[in-house]
Amino acid sequence: MANRKVAGPEIERLIQLLARLPGLGPRSARRAALHLIKKKDQLLVPLADAMGVAVEKVGVCSVCGTVDTSDPCTICCDDGRDPSLLVVVEDVADLWALERAGVLNARYHVLGGTLSPLDGIGPEDLNIASLVERVRNGAIGEVILAVNATVEGQTTALYVTDQLAGLDVTVTRLAHGVPVGGELDHLDEGTLAQALKARTRF
Amino acid sequence: MANRKVAGPEIERLIQLLARLPGLGPRSARRAALHLIKKKDQLLVPLADAMGVAVEKVGVCSVCGTVDTSDPCTICCDDGRDPSLLVVVEDVADLWALERAGVLNARYHVLGGTLSPLDGIGPEDLNIASLVERVRNGAIGEVILAVNATVEGQTTALYVTDQLAGLDVTVTRLAHGVPVGGELDHLDEGTLAQALKARTRF
Repeated sequence: MANRKVAGPEIERLIQLLARLPGLGPRSARRAALHLIKKKDQLLVPLADAMGVAVEKVGVCSVCGTVDTSDPCTICCDDGRDPSLLVVVEDVADLWALERAGVLNARYHVLGGTLSPLDGIGPEDLNIASLVERVRNGAIGEVILAVNATVEGQTTALYVTDQLAGLDVTVTRLAHGVPVGGELDHLDEGTLAQALKARTRF
Repeated sequence: MANRKVAGPEIERLIQLLARLPGLGPRSARRAALHLIKKKDQLLVPLADAMGVAVEKVGVCSVCGTVDTSDPCTICCDDGRDPSLLVVVEDVADLWALERAGVLNARYHVLGGTLSPLDGIGPEDLNIASLVERVRNGAIGEVILAVNATVEGQTTALYVTDQLAGLDVTVTRLAHGVPVGGELDHLDEGTLAQALKARTRF
Protein backbone atom coordinates (compact mmCIF):
# COMPACT_ATOMS: atom_id res chain seq x y z
CA MET A 1 0.00 0.00 0.00
CA ALA A 2 2.40 2.68 1.17
CA ASN A 3 5.65 2.67 3.05
CA ARG A 4 3.68 3.07 6.26
CA LYS A 5 1.27 0.36 7.27
CA VAL A 6 -2.42 1.12 7.23
CA ALA A 7 -3.58 -2.37 8.19
CA GLY A 8 -2.33 -5.68 9.54
CA PRO A 9 -0.14 -7.94 7.37
CA GLU A 10 -3.04 -10.34 6.85
CA ILE A 11 -4.95 -7.73 4.81
CA GLU A 12 -1.85 -6.79 2.81
CA ARG A 13 -1.33 -10.46 2.01
CA LEU A 14 -4.93 -10.87 0.88
CA ILE A 15 -4.49 -7.88 -1.46
CA GLN A 16 -1.21 -9.21 -2.84
CA LEU A 17 -2.72 -12.62 -3.60
CA LEU A 18 -5.85 -11.12 -5.19
CA ALA A 19 -3.58 -8.99 -7.40
CA ARG A 20 -2.20 -12.18 -8.92
CA LEU A 21 -5.58 -13.12 -10.38
CA PRO A 22 -5.84 -12.44 -14.13
CA GLY A 23 -7.88 -9.29 -14.69
CA LEU A 24 -7.06 -7.73 -11.31
CA GLY A 25 -4.21 -5.25 -10.87
CA PRO A 26 -2.90 -3.85 -7.58
CA ARG A 27 -5.56 -1.14 -7.53
CA SER A 28 -8.52 -3.38 -8.27
CA ALA A 29 -7.13 -6.00 -5.86
CA ARG A 30 -7.37 -3.43 -3.06
CA ARG A 31 -10.91 -2.62 -4.10
CA ALA A 32 -11.76 -6.33 -4.22
CA ALA A 33 -10.22 -6.95 -0.78
CA LEU A 34 -12.19 -4.10 0.75
CA HIS A 35 -15.36 -5.33 -0.95
CA LEU A 36 -14.76 -8.82 0.45
CA ILE A 37 -14.14 -7.48 3.95
CA LYS A 38 -17.24 -5.30 3.88
CA LYS A 39 -19.41 -8.12 2.53
CA LYS A 40 -17.99 -10.61 4.97
CA ASP A 41 -21.03 -12.83 5.42
CA GLN A 42 -22.45 -12.46 1.91
CA LEU A 43 -19.21 -12.90 -0.06
CA LEU A 44 -15.98 -13.44 1.89
CA VAL A 45 -17.19 -16.43 3.91
CA PRO A 46 -18.82 -18.25 0.94
CA LEU A 47 -15.84 -17.53 -1.33
CA ALA A 48 -13.35 -18.78 1.27
CA ASP A 49 -15.50 -21.90 1.62
CA ALA A 50 -15.74 -22.42 -2.15
CA MET A 51 -11.97 -22.13 -2.45
CA GLY A 52 -11.47 -24.59 0.36
CA VAL A 53 -13.75 -27.04 -1.42
CA ALA A 54 -11.85 -26.48 -4.68
CA VAL A 55 -8.52 -27.11 -2.93
CA GLU A 56 -9.88 -30.36 -1.60
CA LYS A 57 -11.86 -31.71 -4.52
CA VAL A 58 -10.63 -30.35 -7.84
CA GLY A 59 -8.34 -32.54 -9.84
CA VAL A 60 -7.53 -33.56 -13.39
CA CYS A 61 -9.74 -36.09 -15.18
CA SER A 62 -7.69 -39.21 -15.86
CA VAL A 63 -9.57 -39.82 -19.11
CA CYS A 64 -9.70 -36.45 -20.88
CA GLY A 65 -7.42 -34.14 -18.90
CA THR A 66 -9.95 -31.45 -17.99
CA VAL A 67 -10.30 -30.14 -14.44
CA ASP A 68 -13.28 -31.19 -12.36
CA THR A 69 -14.35 -32.27 -8.91
CA SER A 70 -14.91 -35.85 -10.00
CA ASP A 71 -12.75 -38.35 -11.87
CA PRO A 72 -13.79 -39.32 -14.54
CA CYS A 73 -15.15 -35.80 -15.05
CA THR A 74 -18.74 -34.65 -15.56
CA ILE A 75 -18.34 -34.67 -19.35
CA CYS A 76 -16.69 -38.10 -19.57
CA CYS A 77 -19.52 -39.50 -17.40
CA ASP A 78 -22.28 -37.84 -19.42
CA ASP A 79 -24.07 -40.66 -21.25
CA GLY A 80 -26.03 -38.14 -23.30
CA ARG A 81 -22.93 -37.23 -25.32
CA ASP A 82 -22.00 -38.83 -28.63
CA PRO A 83 -19.23 -41.32 -27.82
CA SER A 84 -18.00 -41.37 -31.44
CA LEU A 85 -17.10 -37.67 -31.55
CA LEU A 86 -13.91 -36.49 -29.82
CA VAL A 87 -12.81 -32.85 -29.76
CA VAL A 88 -9.10 -32.21 -29.10
CA VAL A 89 -8.32 -28.87 -27.43
CA GLU A 90 -5.14 -27.28 -26.11
CA ASP A 91 -6.54 -26.10 -22.82
CA VAL A 92 -9.47 -26.43 -20.42
CA ALA A 93 -10.42 -22.82 -21.24
CA ASP A 94 -10.90 -23.84 -24.90
CA LEU A 95 -13.12 -26.75 -23.82
CA TRP A 96 -15.29 -24.36 -21.77
CA ALA A 97 -15.45 -21.91 -24.70
CA LEU A 98 -16.58 -24.62 -27.13
CA GLU A 99 -19.21 -25.83 -24.67
CA ARG A 100 -20.55 -22.27 -24.45
CA ALA A 101 -20.95 -22.30 -28.24
CA GLY A 102 -23.29 -25.24 -27.54
CA VAL A 103 -23.10 -26.75 -31.04
CA LEU A 104 -21.48 -30.08 -30.26
CA ASN A 105 -22.57 -32.91 -28.05
CA ALA A 106 -19.14 -34.49 -27.92
CA ARG A 107 -16.47 -35.63 -25.53
CA TYR A 108 -13.11 -33.88 -25.25
CA HIS A 109 -9.40 -34.48 -24.92
CA VAL A 110 -7.26 -31.74 -23.39
CA LEU A 111 -3.67 -31.74 -24.68
CA GLY A 112 -2.47 -29.39 -21.96
CA GLY A 113 -0.55 -27.08 -24.29
CA THR A 114 1.12 -27.03 -27.68
CA LEU A 115 4.37 -28.37 -29.02
CA SER A 116 7.04 -25.74 -28.55
CA PRO A 117 10.63 -26.94 -29.05
CA LEU A 118 12.00 -23.52 -28.05
CA ASP A 119 10.29 -23.81 -24.65
CA GLY A 120 11.35 -27.44 -24.38
CA ILE A 121 7.78 -28.74 -24.72
CA GLY A 122 7.80 -31.99 -26.68
CA PRO A 123 5.12 -34.61 -27.43
CA GLU A 124 5.79 -36.42 -24.15
CA ASP A 125 4.80 -33.26 -22.21
CA LEU A 126 1.33 -33.24 -23.77
CA ASN A 127 -1.54 -35.72 -23.47
CA ILE A 128 -0.93 -37.10 -26.96
CA ALA A 129 -0.11 -40.73 -26.11
CA SER A 130 -3.32 -40.98 -24.07
CA LEU A 131 -5.24 -39.51 -27.03
CA VAL A 132 -3.87 -42.14 -29.42
CA GLU A 133 -4.65 -44.85 -26.88
CA ARG A 134 -8.18 -43.51 -26.46
CA VAL A 135 -8.80 -43.45 -30.21
CA ARG A 136 -7.31 -46.90 -30.68
CA ASN A 137 -9.43 -48.49 -27.96
CA GLY A 138 -12.65 -46.53 -28.27
CA ALA A 139 -15.45 -46.46 -30.78
CA ILE A 140 -14.44 -43.01 -31.98
CA GLY A 141 -15.42 -42.13 -35.54
CA GLU A 142 -14.23 -38.50 -35.77
CA VAL A 143 -11.53 -36.49 -34.05
CA ILE A 144 -11.98 -32.71 -34.37
CA LEU A 145 -8.71 -30.83 -33.85
CA ALA A 146 -10.01 -27.63 -32.22
CA VAL A 147 -6.63 -26.02 -31.60
CA ASN A 148 -5.78 -22.35 -31.81
CA ALA A 149 -5.07 -20.92 -35.27
CA THR A 150 -1.52 -20.09 -34.19
CA VAL A 151 1.74 -21.53 -35.54
CA GLU A 152 2.14 -23.65 -32.39
CA GLY A 153 -1.48 -24.84 -32.54
CA GLN A 154 -1.25 -25.82 -36.18
CA THR A 155 2.13 -27.55 -35.67
CA THR A 156 0.62 -29.55 -32.84
CA ALA A 157 -2.41 -30.41 -35.00
CA LEU A 158 -0.11 -31.72 -37.73
CA TYR A 159 1.81 -33.85 -35.24
CA VAL A 160 -1.39 -35.28 -33.73
CA THR A 161 -2.75 -36.07 -37.21
CA ASP A 162 0.48 -37.94 -37.92
CA GLN A 163 0.12 -39.98 -34.73
CA LEU A 164 -3.47 -40.88 -35.58
CA ALA A 165 -2.60 -41.98 -39.13
CA GLY A 166 -3.43 -45.63 -39.71
CA LEU A 167 -6.19 -45.69 -37.12
CA ASP A 168 -9.75 -46.01 -38.36
CA VAL A 169 -10.80 -42.45 -37.61
CA THR A 170 -11.64 -39.28 -39.54
CA VAL A 171 -9.54 -36.29 -38.45
CA THR A 172 -11.05 -32.84 -39.04
CA ARG A 173 -10.14 -29.31 -38.08
CA LEU A 174 -12.02 -26.05 -37.48
CA ALA A 175 -12.86 -23.87 -40.47
CA HIS A 176 -10.78 -20.75 -41.00
CA GLY A 177 -12.57 -17.64 -42.24
CA VAL A 178 -14.22 -14.36 -41.40
CA PRO A 179 -15.38 -14.27 -37.75
CA VAL A 180 -19.13 -13.74 -37.34
CA GLY A 181 -19.67 -10.00 -37.01
CA GLY A 182 -16.22 -9.32 -38.42
CA GLU A 183 -15.51 -6.53 -40.91
CA LEU A 184 -13.31 -7.39 -43.87
CA ASP A 185 -11.57 -4.05 -43.58
CA HIS A 186 -10.18 -4.99 -40.15
CA LEU A 187 -9.07 -8.54 -40.97
CA ASP A 188 -5.53 -9.62 -41.75
CA GLU A 189 -4.55 -10.90 -45.19
CA GLY A 190 -4.07 -14.50 -43.99
CA THR A 191 -7.64 -14.75 -42.75
CA LEU A 192 -9.05 -13.17 -45.90
CA ALA A 193 -7.02 -15.52 -48.09
CA GLN A 194 -8.33 -18.54 -46.16
CA ALA A 195 -11.90 -17.22 -46.33
CA LEU A 196 -11.61 -16.80 -50.11
CA LYS A 197 -10.03 -20.21 -50.67
CA ALA A 198 -12.66 -21.96 -48.56
CA ARG A 199 -15.60 -20.01 -50.04
CA THR A 200 -18.90 -21.89 -50.25
CA ARG A 201 -21.89 -21.69 -52.58
CA PHE A 202 -24.43 -19.05 -51.45
CA MET B 1 -21.36 -21.67 -18.29
CA ALA B 2 -23.74 -23.39 -20.73
CA ASN B 3 -27.00 -25.25 -20.41
CA ARG B 4 -24.99 -28.47 -20.26
CA LYS B 5 -22.61 -28.99 -17.40
CA VAL B 6 -18.91 -29.04 -18.12
CA ALA B 7 -17.78 -29.38 -14.51
CA GLY B 8 -19.06 -30.14 -11.02
CA PRO B 9 -21.26 -27.62 -9.16
CA GLU B 10 -18.35 -26.68 -6.87
CA ILE B 11 -16.45 -25.11 -9.77
CA GLU B 12 -19.56 -23.33 -11.03
CA ARG B 13 -20.09 -21.90 -7.57
CA LEU B 14 -16.49 -20.68 -7.36
CA ILE B 15 -16.93 -18.90 -10.71
CA GLN B 16 -20.22 -17.33 -9.62
CA LEU B 17 -18.71 -16.00 -6.39
CA LEU B 18 -15.60 -14.66 -8.14
CA ALA B 19 -17.86 -12.86 -10.63
CA ARG B 20 -19.24 -10.82 -7.73
CA LEU B 21 -15.86 -9.20 -7.07
CA PRO B 22 -15.61 -5.64 -8.38
CA GLY B 23 -13.58 -5.62 -11.58
CA LEU B 24 -14.42 -9.21 -12.55
CA GLY B 25 -17.26 -10.08 -14.90
CA PRO B 26 -18.58 -13.58 -15.72
CA ARG B 27 -15.91 -14.09 -18.38
CA SER B 28 -12.93 -12.96 -16.30
CA ALA B 29 -14.32 -14.88 -13.32
CA ARG B 30 -14.09 -18.08 -15.37
CA ARG B 31 -10.54 -17.19 -16.34
CA ALA B 32 -9.69 -16.43 -12.71
CA ALA B 33 -11.21 -19.70 -11.50
CA LEU B 34 -9.24 -21.71 -14.06
CA HIS B 35 -6.07 -19.82 -13.14
CA LEU B 36 -6.67 -20.60 -9.46
CA ILE B 37 -7.28 -24.29 -10.17
CA LYS B 38 -4.17 -24.57 -12.33
CA LYS B 39 -2.01 -22.74 -9.78
CA LYS B 40 -3.43 -24.74 -6.91
CA ASP B 41 -0.39 -24.79 -4.64
CA GLN B 42 1.02 -21.40 -5.61
CA LEU B 43 -2.22 -19.40 -5.53
CA LEU B 44 -5.45 -21.23 -4.67
CA VAL B 45 -4.24 -22.71 -1.38
CA PRO B 46 -2.61 -19.46 -0.10
CA LEU B 47 -5.59 -17.35 -1.19
CA ALA B 48 -8.08 -19.70 0.48
CA ASP B 49 -5.93 -19.51 3.62
CA ALA B 50 -5.68 -15.71 3.47
CA MET B 51 -9.45 -15.47 3.14
CA GLY B 52 -9.94 -17.81 6.04
CA VAL B 53 -7.66 -15.63 8.16
CA ALA B 54 -9.56 -12.53 7.05
CA VAL B 55 -12.88 -14.14 7.95
CA GLU B 56 -11.54 -14.89 11.40
CA LYS B 57 -9.54 -11.78 12.21
CA VAL B 58 -10.75 -8.74 10.30
CA GLY B 59 -13.03 -6.37 12.14
CA VAL B 60 -13.82 -2.69 12.52
CA CYS B 61 -11.58 -0.52 14.72
CA SER B 62 -13.60 0.69 17.69
CA VAL B 63 -11.69 3.99 17.72
CA CYS B 64 -11.58 5.18 14.11
CA GLY B 65 -13.89 2.84 12.18
CA THR B 66 -11.39 1.45 9.67
CA VAL B 67 -11.06 -2.27 8.97
CA ASP B 68 -8.09 -4.16 10.34
CA THR B 69 -7.03 -7.39 12.00
CA SER B 70 -6.43 -5.69 15.34
CA ASP B 71 -8.58 -3.41 17.51
CA PRO B 72 -7.50 -0.63 17.99
CA CYS B 73 -6.16 -0.72 14.45
CA THR B 74 -2.58 -0.44 13.19
CA ILE B 75 -2.96 3.29 12.56
CA CYS B 76 -4.58 4.10 15.92
CA CYS B 77 -1.78 2.18 17.66
CA ASP B 78 1.00 3.86 15.64
CA ASP B 79 2.80 6.14 18.10
CA GLY B 80 4.77 7.72 15.28
CA ARG B 81 1.68 9.57 14.05
CA ASP B 82 0.80 13.12 15.05
CA PRO B 83 -1.98 12.74 17.65
CA SER B 84 -3.16 16.32 17.12
CA LEU B 85 -4.10 15.81 13.46
CA LEU B 86 -7.32 13.95 12.61
CA VAL B 87 -8.44 13.26 9.03
CA VAL B 88 -12.15 12.55 8.53
CA VAL B 89 -12.97 10.34 5.52
CA GLU B 90 -16.17 8.79 4.19
CA ASP B 91 -14.81 5.33 3.61
CA VAL B 92 -11.87 3.01 4.30
CA ALA B 93 -10.95 3.19 0.60
CA ASP B 94 -10.45 6.95 0.99
CA LEU B 95 -8.20 6.38 4.01
CA TRP B 96 -6.07 3.94 1.99
CA ALA B 97 -5.91 6.41 -0.92
CA LEU B 98 -4.74 9.26 1.34
CA GLU B 99 -2.11 7.02 2.92
CA ARG B 100 -0.80 6.20 -0.54
CA ALA B 101 -0.36 9.94 -1.15
CA GLY B 102 1.98 9.72 1.86
CA VAL B 103 1.83 13.41 2.76
CA LEU B 104 0.21 13.24 6.16
CA ASN B 105 1.32 11.52 9.32
CA ALA B 106 -2.10 11.69 10.91
CA ARG B 107 -4.78 9.54 12.46
CA TYR B 108 -8.15 9.00 10.80
CA HIS B 109 -11.85 8.81 11.48
CA VAL B 110 -14.02 6.85 9.06
CA LEU B 111 -17.61 8.16 8.86
CA GLY B 112 -18.85 5.08 7.02
CA GLY B 113 -20.77 7.00 4.35
CA THR B 114 -22.43 10.33 3.73
CA LEU B 115 -25.66 11.92 4.86
CA SER B 116 -28.34 11.03 2.36
CA PRO B 117 -31.91 11.75 3.49
CA LEU B 118 -33.32 10.21 0.29
CA ASP B 119 -31.65 6.89 1.15
CA GLY B 120 -32.67 7.23 4.77
CA ILE B 121 -29.09 7.77 5.98
CA GLY B 122 -29.08 10.24 8.85
CA PRO B 123 -26.35 11.42 11.26
CA GLU B 124 -27.03 8.51 13.61
CA ASP B 125 -26.10 6.06 10.83
CA LEU B 126 -22.61 7.56 10.52
CA ASN B 127 -19.71 7.66 12.99
CA ILE B 128 -20.30 11.34 13.76
CA ALA B 129 -21.10 11.12 17.48
CA SER B 130 -17.90 9.13 18.05
CA LEU B 131 -15.97 11.77 16.10
CA VAL B 132 -17.32 14.60 18.28
CA GLU B 133 -16.53 12.56 21.39
CA ARG B 134 -13.00 11.87 20.13
CA VAL B 135 -12.35 15.55 19.41
CA ARG B 136 -13.83 16.62 22.75
CA ASN B 137 -11.71 14.20 24.77
CA GLY B 138 -8.51 14.15 22.74
CA ALA B 139 -5.68 16.59 22.24
CA ILE B 140 -6.71 17.19 18.64
CA GLY B 141 -5.70 20.52 17.14
CA GLU B 142 -6.93 20.15 13.57
CA VAL B 143 -9.66 18.13 11.89
CA ILE B 144 -9.24 17.79 8.12
CA LEU B 145 -12.51 17.00 6.37
CA ALA B 146 -11.24 14.84 3.49
CA VAL B 147 -14.64 13.98 2.04
CA ASN B 148 -15.52 13.57 -1.61
CA ALA B 149 -16.23 16.74 -3.61
CA THR B 150 -19.78 15.56 -4.21
CA VAL B 151 -23.01 17.16 -3.01
CA GLU B 152 -23.41 14.41 -0.38
CA GLY B 153 -19.80 14.75 0.73
CA GLN B 154 -20.00 18.50 1.08
CA THR B 155 -23.36 18.33 2.90
CA THR B 156 -21.85 15.85 5.33
CA ALA B 157 -18.80 18.10 5.81
CA LEU B 158 -21.07 21.04 6.63
CA TYR B 159 -23.00 18.97 9.18
CA VAL B 160 -19.80 17.70 10.81
CA THR B 161 -18.42 21.25 11.00
CA ASP B 162 -21.63 22.28 12.75
CA GLN B 163 -21.28 19.47 15.28
CA LEU B 164 -17.67 20.45 16.01
CA ALA B 165 -18.51 24.15 16.49
CA GLY B 166 -17.67 25.32 19.98
CA LEU B 167 -14.91 22.77 20.46
CA ASP B 168 -11.33 24.02 20.54
CA VAL B 169 -10.30 22.66 17.15
CA THR B 170 -9.49 24.01 13.70
CA VAL B 171 -11.61 22.44 10.96
CA THR B 172 -10.12 22.44 7.46
CA ARG B 173 -11.06 20.89 4.14
CA LEU B 174 -9.20 19.71 1.02
CA ALA B 175 -8.35 22.29 -1.64
CA HIS B 176 -10.42 22.31 -4.81
CA GLY B 177 -8.63 22.98 -8.06
CA VAL B 178 -7.01 21.58 -11.17
CA PRO B 179 -5.89 17.94 -10.64
CA VAL B 180 -2.15 17.42 -11.12
CA GLY B 181 -1.63 16.46 -14.75
CA GLY B 182 -5.10 17.75 -15.65
CA GLU B 183 -5.77 19.76 -18.81
CA LEU B 184 -7.95 22.86 -18.45
CA ASP B 185 -9.71 22.03 -21.69
CA HIS B 186 -11.13 18.83 -20.18
CA LEU B 187 -12.19 20.25 -16.81
CA ASP B 188 -15.71 21.22 -15.87
CA GLU B 189 -16.68 24.81 -15.17
CA GLY B 190 -17.12 24.29 -11.44
CA THR B 191 -13.56 23.04 -10.97
CA LEU B 192 -12.15 25.87 -13.10
CA ALA B 193 -14.15 28.44 -11.13
CA GLN B 194 -12.82 27.05 -7.84
CA ALA B 195 -9.26 26.94 -9.18
CA LEU B 196 -9.51 30.59 -10.24
CA LYS B 197 -11.07 31.76 -6.98
CA ALA B 198 -8.43 29.94 -4.91
CA ARG B 199 -5.49 31.05 -7.10
CA THR B 200 -2.18 31.50 -5.31
CA ARG B 201 0.80 33.77 -5.91
CA PHE B 202 3.32 32.17 -8.32
